[in-house]
Amino acid sequence: MPSSLALFRALEKSAPGTKTTTDTLLDAIPWNDDGLIPAIAQQFDSREVLMMAWMNRDALTETLEKHRVCYWSRSRQRFWRKGESSGQVQVLKSAHLDCDGDTLLLLVDQLGPACHTGRKSCFYHQLDRTESTITTAPDVDPETLYGQRKDR
Amino acid sequence: MPSSLALFRALEKSAPGTKTTTDTLLDAIPWNDDGLIPAIAQQFDSREVLMMAWMNRDALTETLEKHRVCYWSRSRQRFWRKGESSGQVQVLKSAHLDCDGDTLLLLVDQLGPACHTGRKSCFYHQLDRTESTITTAPDVDPETLYGQRKDR
Repeated sequence: MPSSLALFRALEKSAPGTKTTTDTLLDAIPWNDDGLIPAIAQQFDSREVLMMAWMNRDALTETLEKHRVCYWSRSRQRFWRKGESSGQVQVLKSAHLDCDGDTLLLLVDQLGPACHTGRKSCFYHQLDRTESTITTAPDVDPETLYGQRKDR
Repeated sequence: MPSSLALFRALEKSAPGTKTTTDTLLDAIPWNDDGLIPAIAQQFDSREVLMMAWMNRDALTETLEKHRVCYWSRSRQRFWRKGESSGQVQVLKSAHLDCDGDTLLLLVDQLGPACHTGRKSCFYHQLDRTESTITTAPDVDPETLYGQRKDR
């Protein structure tokens, strides 16, 4: 068992309310080969799942400090402070790590659409076995959010 | 732009109800170097996010056919039919692909706990900047689910 997993295994049976230093947990996260972990963003009140993106340790630390969600853009290879070009920021309500320490769940308050297409959520292709269907239309024209720019 | 992304870009402005052959969408998914895509499982009625795991194309196709969620276990390098050793199956209610085709959201009906620790959800470490807290206790003893075995 990797030593990082040993910490998560040890915590499995700990009682609710048990505290651990966050830096100790972050040391134990099995960051992938690019130093990243996937982060799911969920609207805190409606519980709609909005998007998934990636964070490195610095992006996660900044997010926990500032309560504004900062990802790592894999395509642009730089910090992606959600809403920096569109204004559609994500205010962090709470951050959660899973049992094995390899996925984050962020409860956020999303201002405007989360998706670069102008939709609230990125998950608008419903898949059935033979045919798939687009389920939502944009709430706003993405041109009004970015002009010719893209937020990711 | 990779040709796979071109399909998703072309569909961004399509109206709700627009149909695409699912195999065409699956051809365009930017599977990672291991042929996988992350899949978020969300309880369909409570909207609680339960877990995240990975699927290859065969696992996704089987899931869409059988409406029982099948992942690909990275640690065991084989299909992981959720609940095969624990009975805690996930019945698929609907499957959704995101705007760039690189993440799945599965709405499921989870029988019993999703987490191998016996908790409903895997996301039980709440992260604050300096200290983190375990937020839930197991609903059932994992020994009763698996004996000495693990479901992943």
